[in-house]
Amino acid sequence: MTRPPLPLVRTLSHPAPSRLSRPRRHLRTFTSLPRFAGTSVRIVEVGARDGLQNEKTTVPLETKLELLSRLSKTGLRHIEAGSFVSPKWVPQMANTSAILSHLEATRDDEPERRDITYSYLVPNEKGLASFLDAGPAPGAGNEIAVFASASEGFSRSNLNCSVAESLRRFAPVVERACARGFRVRGYVSMVIACPYSDATPPAAVAAVVRQLLDMGCYEVSLGDTNGVGTPATVAKLLACLIGENAIPAEKLAAHFHDTYGQAIVNSLVALEHGIRTFDASVSGLGGCPYAAGATGNVATEDLVYFLEGTGVHTGVDLEQLAGVGEWVSKALGRRNGSRVGRALAGKKRAG
Amino acid sequence: MTRPPLPLVRTLSHPAPSRLSRPRRHLRTFTSLPRFAGTSVRIVEVGARDGLQNEKTTVPLETKLELLSRLSKTGLRHIEAGSFVSPKWVPQMANTSAILSHLEATRDDEPERRDITYSYLVPNEKGLASFLDAGPAPGAGNEIAVFASASEGFSRSNLNCSVAESLRRFAPVVERACARGFRVRGYVSMVIACPYSDATPPAAVAAVVRQLLDMGCYEVSLGDTNGVGTPATVAKLLACLIGENAIPAEKLAAHFHDTYGQAIVNSLVALEHGIRTFDASVSGLGGCPYAAGATGNVATEDLVYFLEGTGVHTGVDLEQLAGVGEWVSKALGRRNGSRVGRALAGKKRAG
Repeated sequence: MTRPPLPLVRTLSHPAPSRLSRPRRHLRTFTSLPRFAGTSVRIVEVGARDGLQNEKTTVPLETKLELLSRLSKTGLRHIEAGSFVSPKWVPQMANTSAILSHLEATRDDEPERRDITYSYLVPNEKGLASFLDAGPAPGAGNEIAVFASASEGFSRSNLNCSVAESLRRFAPVVERACARGFRVRGYVSMVIACPYSDATPPAAVAAVVRQLLDMGCYEVSLGDTNGVGTPATVAKLLACLIGENAIPAEKLAAHFHDTYGQAIVNSLVALEHGIRTFDASVSGLGGCPYAAGATGNVATEDLVYFLEGTGVHTGVDLEQLAGVGEWVSKALGRRNGSRVGRALAGKKRAG
Repeated sequence: MTRPPLPLVRTLSHPAPSRLSRPRRHLRTFTSLPRFAGTSVRIVEVGARDGLQNEKTTVPLETKLELLSRLSKTGLRHIEAGSFVSPKWVPQMANTSAILSHLEATRDDEPERRDITYSYLVPNEKGLASFLDAGPAPGAGNEIAVFASASEGFSRSNLNCSVAESLRRFAPVVERACARGFRVRGYVSMVIACPYSDATPPAAVAAVVRQLLDMGCYEVSLGDTNGVGTPATVAKLLACLIGENAIPAEKLAAHFHDTYGQAIVNSLVALEHGIRTFDASVSGLGGCPYAAGATGNVATEDLVYFLEGTGVHTGVDLEQLAGVGEWVSKALGRRNGSRVGRALAGKKRAG
C-alpha cells in the first residue's frame, strides 16, 4: 500500500458496522476512520439526572416520565433516571422514588425497555435504603451509582468530607448493593482540574478509581465536571490510568462536559485510548454550576453524530434522539443545547 | 520569565513554544500532545466578514472599525475585514471601502497592526476595481480572497454559474491582483457536502483547489460551509488532497463550521494531516444560512483553547480575545456563540 504517513487516518471505505439488537435508521451514511471500523460503544444517557439536577426549574414528574419513555425508544441502553439524594439539597430529584416505581411497574409495556438499564445516584446508606424501598428488581435492569471526587477541595465543598472519608462512606453502600444483586457504577468528578484546587494530579484520580473498583464498582466514569480538559490533559490522564496504573480501559467511562467546547475532541482522545463508554445528556440538559450561562454535559446528539461520523456504532437513532431533545427543550422552555439538535430542527422548520 | 501562579495544569511543563513577534500572555499553561509540541499555527479571523455577513442586522461602520481595532490587539495576524460584493446582494458588507480606507490611513497609529494582513473578499473584476479604488498598499498588509464552490449545486445557487464558469471568471481577477502586488487567497465552499447536491466528491474538491493554486492563489481554504463534516469525512478529503493529489498541506487551510458540533475535532484531524492554518470567527459571529438557529463558523476562542490545549502555539491572547467576543456579542445584541467566551464571562461575573 503506497500511502503517505498520515498518522491519524487513511482513506478506506466503511465495512458494514456491527449492529446492536435491531437495525436502526441513521441520519446519514457515515464513513469511518479505519481503525475504528466495527467498533461499538455504549452511551450512558445522564440528562434525566445529571442534566435535570442542574436545571433551574424543578421538572414535574409527568415530564420526567415522558422524557424517560421517549429516551427509551431511541436505542439508548443505559439511562440514568434519578438520584436518591436529600430533597433538601437537590429538590430537582425529589420524585426519584416515584420514577423508579413507575419504570418498574411499566417495564413490560414497552418492548424496547426490557434491555435498558436504569441507574440511580445513591450518595449514602440512607439513599440506598430509599432506592431499595422503591422496589427495583435486581439484575441488569437497575443499578446504582456512587459519586466521589478526585479533588480534595471539591470533595469538601460538595460532599462535606475528605476524599478518603467519602470513599469510606461508600464502601458499605457498594457492598450492600452488590449483595442485593445490583451493579454499582462509580463516578469520579473533577478529574482534570477543580474550581477549588486547580489541576487534579492524574495519580490522585488513579487512586480513587482503583479504590472504587476494589470496592466492587464494575466501572468508573471519569468526570471532567467543569469541562476544562483538552486533548493533552485528557491524554495524560488516560495514559496515567491505563498505562502506568494498569486500569483496564473497559472499566472506564468518559464523562465530558462541553464548557470550553472540547468534549467531542476529548472523546476522540478517549476512543484512541480504548474507552468504549461515554456519558452524555440529551439536548445538553443541565448546565455548568461554576459559570452561569456556560455549557454543561456534552449533548448526546452531538456525541452520537461524532461517533457515527467516525465509524463507531452507537445503536442510537440520531433523528429520533434529536426529536426528544427538541421536545424536552420546549417542555422546559430552554434553548436546545445540542448543536446537532438545533441544526436538524432548523432544517425541519425550513422544510 | 514569570508565569502566573494559577496554571490549569502544571504537572508537565510546556516546552518553550516558538513565538511570533512578541511574547503574549496566555490564559493558562497547557500541556501538549507530544507530537504537536513546538507546532505553531496561523489563525485567520473571519468574524468581521464571513461572520457579519451572516448576521441579521447590518452593523454600523463604527462598530466594525472598533471590532477590527480590538481584534488587532489580540495577537491575531490575519484578519478578514470585509467583502467587495454588490451591496444589493450583501448589504451587510456595504461599507467595506470605508473600512479599507480607514485601516490604511490608521495603520501606523497602532504598532500591533503593522504585522497584520487584512483581507477582503473580491468576487469579480468589479469587486477588484472597488478594492483597488479604496487605496490598499500592495504587499503583505492587504490581500484579496476569491470564492469558489466544490459543488455544482451550490455554485449555481450562490454564484449563478457552474463551477468551471466561476473559475474562469476568477482567473483574470487573480492575475490582475497578483500583478498589482497583492496575494490572493482562495476559498472553496461545501467541501464535504452541500445542501443542494449531497456529498461532495473529494476529487471534485481537489480539482478546484488545484485550479485555484495554478491560477496564482498562495493558499486555499477548505470550507465545510454547512458544518456536516466528521473526522472520517474530513480525513478522507485531506487524504485525497494531500495524499492522492499531492497538494502540499502548507497550501491548505481549514475553514470549519460548527453546525453539528464537529469543528474542533475536525481541526484535530486537520492538524494530524499537516494543516497549519485555521479560519475562525470571534464569538462564533455569523450563523448558518442553511438552518435557522444553528451554529456557523467555529468560534475563534474555542479553537484557540483547543489548539493551546493540544500544545499548538497560536500567538493569540485568549483572555483578550474572549473579551472582544463578549464586547461584540453585546454590541450586536446577540448571544455569545463561543462556549469558552460564555464560560469565561460567567466566571468573571461570579467573581
